[in-house]
Amino acid sequence: MEADTSEARGRSAAQIVLGIDPGSATTGFGLVERCGARVVHVAHGTIRLPRTGSLALRLDRLHREVAELAQRYRPDVASIEQCFVAVSPRSALVLGQARGVALAALGGSGVTVVEYAPAQIKLAVAGSGRAGKDQIQRVVSRMLGLTTWPAPDAADALATALCHAMAGRLEQLGPRLRTRRRRARGPVVRVRRVS
Amino acid sequence: MEADTSEARGRSAAQIVLGIDPGSATTGFGLVERCGARVVHVAHGTIRLPRTGSLALRLDRLHREVAELAQRYRPDVASIEQCFVAVSPRSALVLGQARGVALAALGGSGVTVVEYAPAQIKLAVAGSGRAGKDQIQRVVSRMLGLTTWPAPDAADALATALCHAMAGRLEQLGPRLRTRRRRARGPVVRVRRVS
Repeated sequence: MEADTSEARGRSAAQIVLGIDPGSATTGFGLVERCGARVVHVAHGTIRLPRTGSLALRLDRLHREVAELAQRYRPDVASIEQCFVAVSPRSALVLGQARGVALAALGGSGVTVVEYAPAQIKLAVAGSGRAGKDQIQRVVSRMLGLTTWPAPDAADALATALCHAMAGRLEQLGPRLRTRRRRARGPVVRVRRVS
Repeated sequence: MEADTSEARGRSAAQIVLGIDPGSATTGFGLVERCGARVVHVAHGTIRLPRTGSLALRLDRLHREVAELAQRYRPDVASIEQCFVAVSPRSALVLGQARGVALAALGGSGVTVVEYAPAQIKLAVAGSGRAGKDQIQRVVSRMLGLTTWPAPDAADALATALCHAMAGRLEQLGPRLRTRRRRARGPVVRVRRVS
């Protein structure tokens, strides 16, 4: 596991959200902390599975790494992209294997899992449901005040975590404002980094 | 987990093969023991996931049940059907999730996993790569001397285990006989139940 972590943080009433973007070769993860109106970066990184070794051993490695993530950061909730099924059955099966393992590890760690549609995540962070990979990297990096762009998988995971963290904020704003903000261009909620 | 188990058996030079047929709702399993030319039934059954509860919790349950199977029976090898991708991407993703979890649990338990194509399994036990579900139930039941037909998922798992157990026997017979036997109608190798 390769991770970029921000400085130590107090828990208090904060909610830690783990975003996860499972893949057969690389799984991205991103953690943010929401405390009231603030959302700050905690950590992000990638879990790269070895190219060699049996599929069973590689998937077990993924299971252990995700469980370790849950153990280390103790997220209150994990956010994951809903099944994206506009791919070939072969790709869906391979993706499903990694996705199932990540979900099982989160379930076994007692972490509640929430799902968001890909377009919902992109809309939440980039203001467009059709935002590209590099746009997500740029926007997520700016929103969380990162000095470098996260890798694409980690950026997707951070976006998934941010989507949930901001969804909670939007709930508090009430339906009218929520609708207006969703229609607006640009990031739905601007998040400042707080050290 | 619901299991039908045969009487206690000694290990010696025997090889225990665990066949597994993962599914999103029900996962079938079947264990056979090969000792030289003999293949006998050990146990078979199904792991039924609860209909309620989150997907993450249900997949974690599957992971724990498969790991428990490996712990209880200590198979030398696990046999699983190769990816069957002639389904919709949605079905492939759902199947992939269960398959990935089962593989990760086997990998984590140190069990070597081998894969066989669906047609290869059907051909090995029923003499036809297009054998139907009920034909597999009937043939597997007869080959292992079971008094009742196993449930379809458990029968598929037993067939997958038998395919590997018999593949080893066929290897010992040499290429000529192997080819002749594969062309023959009916079960490729008849297996007698030995108490």
